[in-house]
Amino acid sequence: MAVPGPGYAITARVEAPPSATAAGDLAVAVGRVGGVMTAFDVVESRPDSIIVDISCNALSERHAEEITDALGTLDGVRVRNVSDRTFLVHLGGKIEVTAKVGLRTREDLSRAYTPGVARVCQAIAARPEAARSLTIKRNTVAVVTDGSAVLGLGNLGAAAAMPVMEGKAALFKRFAGVDAWPVCLDTQDTEEIIRTVEILAPAYGGINLEDIAAPACFEIEARLRETLDIPVFHDDQHGTAVVVLGALRNALRVVGKRAEDCRIVICGVGAAGSAIIRLLLPLQPADLLAVDVDGIIHEGRPGLHPSLEWVAERTNAENRTGDVHDALPGADVFIGVSAPNLLHADDVKGMADDAIVFALANPDPEIDPGIAQHYAAVVATGRSDYPNQINNVLAFPGIFRGLLDAQARTITDAMLLAASAAIADVVAEPNPLFIVPSVFDSTVSPAVASAVRKVSEARGSELASVQAALDAGAESAEGVTKEET
Amino acid sequence: MAVPGPGYAITARVEAPPSATAAGDLAVAVGRVGGVMTAFDVVESRPDSIIVDISCNALSERHAEEITDALGTLDGVRVRNVSDRTFLVHLGGKIEVTAKVGLRTREDLSRAYTPGVARVCQAIAARPEAARSLTIKRNTVAVVTDGSAVLGLGNLGAAAAMPVMEGKAALFKRFAGVDAWPVCLDTQDTEEIIRTVEILAPAYGGINLEDIAAPACFEIEARLRETLDIPVFHDDQHGTAVVVLGALRNALRVVGKRAEDCRIVICGVGAAGSAIIRLLLPLQPADLLAVDVDGIIHEGRPGLHPSLEWVAERTNAENRTGDVHDALPGADVFIGVSAPNLLHADDVKGMADDAIVFALANPDPEIDPGIAQHYAAVVATGRSDYPNQINNVLAFPGIFRGLLDAQARTITDAMLLAASAAIADVVAEPNPLFIVPSVFDSTVSPAVASAVRKVSEARGSELASVQAALDAGAESAEGVTKEET
Repeated sequence: MAVPGPGYAITARVEAPPSATAAGDLAVAVGRVGGVMTAFDVVESRPDSIIVDISCNALSERHAEEITDALGTLDGVRVRNVSDRTFLVHLGGKIEVTAKVGLRTREDLSRAYTPGVARVCQAIAARPEAARSLTIKRNTVAVVTDGSAVLGLGNLGAAAAMPVMEGKAALFKRFAGVDAWPVCLDTQDTEEIIRTVEILAPAYGGINLEDIAAPACFEIEARLRETLDIPVFHDDQHGTAVVVLGALRNALRVVGKRAEDCRIVICGVGAAGSAIIRLLLPLQPADLLAVDVDGIIHEGRPGLHPSLEWVAERTNAENRTGDVHDALPGADVFIGVSAPNLLHADDVKGMADDAIVFALANPDPEIDPGIAQHYAAVVATGRSDYPNQINNVLAFPGIFRGLLDAQARTITDAMLLAASAAIADVVAEPNPLFIVPSVFDSTVSPAVASAVRKVSEARGSELASVQAALDAGAESAEGVTKEET
Repeated sequence: MAVPGPGYAITARVEAPPSATAAGDLAVAVGRVGGVMTAFDVVESRPDSIIVDISCNALSERHAEEITDALGTLDGVRVRNVSDRTFLVHLGGKIEVTAKVGLRTREDLSRAYTPGVARVCQAIAARPEAARSLTIKRNTVAVVTDGSAVLGLGNLGAAAAMPVMEGKAALFKRFAGVDAWPVCLDTQDTEEIIRTVEILAPAYGGINLEDIAAPACFEIEARLRETLDIPVFHDDQHGTAVVVLGALRNALRVVGKRAEDCRIVICGVGAAGSAIIRLLLPLQPADLLAVDVDGIIHEGRPGLHPSLEWVAERTNAENRTGDVHDALPGADVFIGVSAPNLLHADDVKGMADDAIVFALANPDPEIDPGIAQHYAAVVATGRSDYPNQINNVLAFPGIFRGLLDAQARTITDAMLLAASAAIADVVAEPNPLFIVPSVFDSTVSPAVASAVRKVSEARGSELASVQAALDAGAESAEGVTKEET
């Protein structure tokens, strides 16, 4: 079901005879081996030959080589050079640090650096809260990973995780104006990770944990939330859960069901699955079954990790056992965050009428969405080449925009639920093929930010302490502007 | 001797009567209390009043208040608001993270982020050296501090050090196109600092230690140089030493002396002093005396710290004792990196003919440069309001530009000496008032970078291993471009 996409885009520089049919011959050669030609640029034309850049999308590295070979076997054609466009995009990294202040004159220097900067340092030393207005802390998030669970690729380590974290930083800026910095840690020791983030925290207004394997990620997140005075968010947990909940809200609208009447099956109880369960519980679904590689989670299942015990206590009202196939008959909703091709057509067929299937394993879903669509009313995946892509980009930029604007010290489930509702409500009239907005819908991030900010600022019992903090923040502006009356 | 400078610049918004003399009255009021007016902008003109923004430079926060008060006591004048321009420059921080790649279309997203990014991660996992071409490591330096010795202000801690580190990052970009990121550590434990930098290192192509107090800075630097495969530079040591050596080279040209004929006195043996001594020794001066708060350092002085024992063994050929005043008679060169106002006119008077005095304590030098100029042939300070400012900005941007371009794994004294010669040689014809180039001379950084790069690439015995590393780097381009012949 895969089609050649821009993730494997190459540009081949080719020398060909200057014949009238050259362009056609080259295009045919690419198409014959299944490549998709996206551009044909003549670089140079000589009496005896033309130099052409042929851009095309391929399925894989191997497929790209097949295309190159197909070009090279044409009569009189020589492939001079093949560039992999994805690698070219990454050359030298994807983000940079730029100055927001002018440094053209000595006056500029003496304000932004010595001697002027000394007074700013002293102001922060005297009132640490002032760092939230006088440094990048106001708008900056650390994207922290240990490289233990990079995308679906597994434990690649710190250096190899950098391209993902840089990409994330680029997305943060693009979608919400947030400055984010990749913090790739060359350790996978839980205590060292926690301590390192604590040591780095003063410069940041928030922590985005990323691609850290379960169950270590749970302890790291919980401990950091205890010790830090800035919000700690784990995108693989909370980002995914927020978008899933938003999509589910609209899917339920489409099929005309209420969450409290639904039986929901979650397959996969790692970072994402656990967080989805935690956010689903307040909706009080009729039942919730969590399934992992060892089957349906139930109280008394031997060898349950503490994080699964928590799940066992709160799900599976009838204490069912069995595997994912036993869980599905009659279910209203399936949410998979697990592994490819676990389900068969019959599994979906056996679900309740107007079933909802979110098959989110990447890059290959729990069930081919083309098959699921025959039996379910609404289908969503994590892929961009099917309708209803569940993409974290809908959540994390706006969530941190809201947290930073509110100068929030913590992040709560109430904020996450507000964010998920905000994402859903961007879609005015959901239909089976449109339950989440496009990642390029520019109204999403502001809507999410506003929802998060409102909850943060209205946090009932904690309002007083939050207010005190905000007051301190306002006071810090004293160093900036003094009013006289 | 202080004059109002832009480090204390304020803008007062004032309401005044619309009289013909208003502007003059306001200017006179500012001047009467010693303020320097830099701008007069009418914001609004009404029949009964005018609103004016008066910008002026002051000596201190208190002086700024005196100026405001002087304005407010004028007849019919009301000061509505006073903004401190230095604080305004810092509002929200001075640097930002920006994307170097377009993220406008889904194709862009799928190359810079998932799914395309996965192949780039795998390429780095397979060959870690590829991180030097496919991530920001190629051009990025960590500016690391524990906030224990912020400027001349002392131990202010991590958060209060941020404005300096952000400023430094801005300078790195401005003067050498280097991406630098502030890493302010909320610990002052030597072992924790070392371990944290090791954990963070994979993302960076170099480490710039900054404002870490001696003697901890020596151990941190030495240990990190042992364990990391990227250069570790401590600006307070090496940056200062490089500029001092460059300035000294030209000062000696001006007075027509050779280093090997000179008696040199260094006052202050902290980070900067130690590094200056280390770089001076290869020049084999006739004698070198190092002086700290306990007097001239000599072998057998009780209670010498190991870093000072090293100095004692290599300096003070005649094993002299006494204080700084005992060290100076007959000396050719005085280099102070210590404390304000230690020397008297007589000390300089007693030096050799054509003496060179570098009084670099900040903000107040070891001796008033106006006085020193009467007796010494060449005088330099750290201040921007006197000739011959010894400013690290001349060194660190170009040094790291060179290190990054060479993909250097270490930094050597030979590179630092080459950098200092490069700075000196930018000044074609030095004279007593011009021994170092202006910080805004755009030829300095490229000259320094080129000198450092050449030494790095030519490193004799280590050339083989460096070459292997460079080869690996070139190989990594294989993922980018495949040549066929």
